[in-house]
Amino acid sequence: MNKENKYSKIESFEKKIHYSFQNKKLLKQALTHSSFANENKKYHLGHNERLEFLGDAILELIVSDYLYKEYTTLKEGDLTKLRASIVCEPSLAEAARRIDIGSYLYLGKGEELTGGRERDSILCDAFEAIIGAVYVDSSIEKVQKYIYYHLLQYVKSEHDHHPFIDYKTSLQEWIQKSSTIPIEYEILEEAGPDHNKRFLVQVRHQNQILGFGRGRSKKEAEQKAAWEAMKNI
Amino acid sequence: MNKENKYSKIESFEKKIHYSFQNKKLLKQALTHSSFANENKKYHLGHNERLEFLGDAILELIVSDYLYKEYTTLKEGDLTKLRASIVCEPSLAEAARRIDIGSYLYLGKGEELTGGRERDSILCDAFEAIIGAVYVDSSIEKVQKYIYYHLLQYVKSEHDHHPFIDYKTSLQEWIQKSSTIPIEYEILEEAGPDHNKRFLVQVRHQNQILGFGRGRSKKEAEQKAAWEAMKNI
Repeated sequence: MNKENKYSKIESFEKKIHYSFQNKKLLKQALTHSSFANENKKYHLGHNERLEFLGDAILELIVSDYLYKEYTTLKEGDLTKLRASIVCEPSLAEAARRIDIGSYLYLGKGEELTGGRERDSILCDAFEAIIGAVYVDSSIEKVQKYIYYHLLQYVKSEHDHHPFIDYKTSLQEWIQKSSTIPIEYEILEEAGPDHNKRFLVQVRHQNQILGFGRGRSKKEAEQKAAWEAMKNI
Repeated sequence: MNKENKYSKIESFEKKIHYSFQNKKLLKQALTHSSFANENKKYHLGHNERLEFLGDAILELIVSDYLYKEYTTLKEGDLTKLRASIVCEPSLAEAARRIDIGSYLYLGKGEELTGGRERDSILCDAFEAIIGAVYVDSSIEKVQKYIYYHLLQYVKSEHDHHPFIDYKTSLQEWIQKSSTIPIEYEILEEAGPDHNKRFLVQVRHQNQILGFGRGRSKKEAEQKAAWEAMKNI
């Protein structure tokens, strides 16, 4: 292995992730798949499985903490569902692709030949291992920023556009705790041709406006209105 | 509810756990089972499920971090097994009983009548919720100390006496990375009558002594010797 190449590869990846390691060996280890370490036993290389073990737990906590603080009215069951939709293979593999982890992996020949650089499971594990490495190299605060920057900001943006929780039910349960008067949804606007409709919906309770929502269907607009209401109350 | 009673209960529990909350409401919430909140809807009490969601993730991270640093030669699979044996209902319910959580819980009448104060699942959930509450009230460093004090120190002591991982296999795999020469175990001492045997075992590699272990069976002594060796290398 050429040392200069090795370091330029590591440095180039550091620029990509906007984090410079104090201990470069940690990043190298996080990018090393077990197949590579197994093929190069004489070099006693560490691979990324232990860091992945740690990174997974860090990710669970940072995402849980974020959801707990962001969604103050959601129940434990909904928080768990939401977390599972973020800390899952497809979502983490997507995050890994955004920083092009595949190109920087140290992979064994067999994995290389069978498309390992593009495999969701390998990308997801490496994404978690890098989180473990950032944590060991720095602090929980730094790794929290790292996770927000590379994962949560995208989730937040996606989520604002396509809510994946039933907010109408959550809002109703919330209101019912203190009132028996039902919530009302009203369509304020319906525009566009049949194949490209746009709806604007208002949600009210006891004549108080709780929120508005826009969407391509009545259902989507109502969900968004309920979501806005949950944030406001 | 009598306010004076309520606060003396909270304060008495704080003494028990050696942590004084800045926000006492958090502790109250952590000790409130959903059955109690449901029976007292008009008071809009929060129950402990959201804090339990958070506490569980904190516990997973702190235990993972501890195991990662303590067992530097264990593989990811063994770390995962070890973590699962610590972050599980029986282990957490035991920790909850040590601080007598059952006596301090706010429980609904139904749960009270059917022995809820002694139920593992309720105790375990409350133990996790208190961890969540300590975290929200303070910092990750404080909650780390809390978890060490109330859980990990006992695990460590238990584990030193009854290792529950196959350390012989782990040691062998570790040595095989750099050498083909086998590990040797030798019984140095065998004492006591048949029903109360004591063994002392030594483990060596290439004439270098890696560790010693004592036990009531040859197997137990060998496992402990391998465990000592794993800590030394």
